[in-house]
Amino acid sequence: MSFAEYFPVWDKLDKAQQQMLLDSVTERSAPAGTILYSGGSDCLGLVVVKSGRLRAYSISGEGREITLYRLFERDICLMTSSCMMHNLQFDVNIEVEKDAEFWVIPPAVYRDLTEQSLAAAKYTNDLLATRLSDVMWLMEQIMWQSFDKRLAEFLLEESDMEGTKVLSLTHEKIANHLGTAREVVTRMLRYFQGEEMVRLARGTVELTNTEALSRLTGR
Amino acid sequence: MSFAEYFPVWDKLDKAQQQMLLDSVTERSAPAGTILYSGGSDCLGLVVVKSGRLRAYSISGEGREITLYRLFERDICLMTSSCMMHNLQFDVNIEVEKDAEFWVIPPAVYRDLTEQSLAAAKYTNDLLATRLSDVMWLMEQIMWQSFDKRLAEFLLEESDMEGTKVLSLTHEKIANHLGTAREVVTRMLRYFQGEEMVRLARGTVELTNTEALSRLTGR
Repeated sequence: MSFAEYFPVWDKLDKAQQQMLLDSVTERSAPAGTILYSGGSDCLGLVVVKSGRLRAYSISGEGREITLYRLFERDICLMTSSCMMHNLQFDVNIEVEKDAEFWVIPPAVYRDLTEQSLAAAKYTNDLLATRLSDVMWLMEQIMWQSFDKRLAEFLLEESDMEGTKVLSLTHEKIANHLGTAREVVTRMLRYFQGEEMVRLARGTVELTNTEALSRLTGR
Repeated sequence: MSFAEYFPVWDKLDKAQQQMLLDSVTERSAPAGTILYSGGSDCLGLVVVKSGRLRAYSISGEGREITLYRLFERDICLMTSSCMMHNLQFDVNIEVEKDAEFWVIPPAVYRDLTEQSLAAAKYTNDLLATRLSDVMWLMEQIMWQSFDKRLAEFLLEESDMEGTKVLSLTHEKIANHLGTAREVVTRMLRYFQGEEMVRLARGTVELTNTEALSRLTGR
């Protein structure tokens, strides 16, 4: 599969624009755990995911984390080129969550593209609107949802994503996804275990009653 | 002052596009307290602020509120036309905070404009990037800042915006800006009063030591 097949508005670009992309894009790969991008001072470029999974997260002064959104195959990450978008002023971090292959488009090349191509500019609108919706959803969860619902929702999503009911996740990792302290996660997981919704073992959380967890989320 | 002077990319539109806007835009005014827009099912159009002040906020199932951002003269609100942007999926509410005059561009007209005009599409990118940055900033505040800092920051901003150190704000109103309960606000304001940073009276909060409040925010 080639870059052209992964870049969403490829067919709407003219030959010169397509060539400009092909001449500048680089293909890379990185193992799980790699920090691809850290904060606003960094400048990577636009990332187009070929395979694997990336995680975008925010980090506090004290090192606490919260997951903002995930990027899967064919997703495009705009935040990693905030150095070229002066209206995008915030720090996001990107790490490789599952061994990933991806293309990187240099920031200046993408900027030129959106200066020339209405299709690329409109596509950028869609990307920004999607990320804004993701972040608004997350903020509403944090503001208005109780932690038991957020944790149940997170466990069900992880289970869907990984295709298994036995999740390899430490309490620390879960806390870093949800922006809370490890102790808070441990306490709630023990409550879930008492209700027979999960079974806890060293480094794993097994979902034993997904219906009860779903009911808790109110889905 | 005419609409053309308030619409940012006016000079970059062709005559037909300018005429399309002039033929469809409506001028309106609304007194403070008016709810202009409520949630995703509503569809107003793009709002261009001529004068006054609007407040964008999110609301919980239980009716608690949090202020997302403010819109001032010359600001443009895109969220009020989310009905035409299928990637913008979240509920935002807009109320008039200070008597306002504004123009409304019908959603379909703005969509046509961004389909035709690269300048309009690029401007929309800037708007979305700005809103995304606003919401990210707010989320980071909520996640990582203690409430005393957030309250001090809010009081200083209100004071700057209103040009006075005597703020006409009930504790309930402040709670609705910051997404918390009235009791939490009252408790912290009493602590601030004990530290001689504010003086409380019925329906007002007077800032008596802005330096101390600034130090608290870490600015």
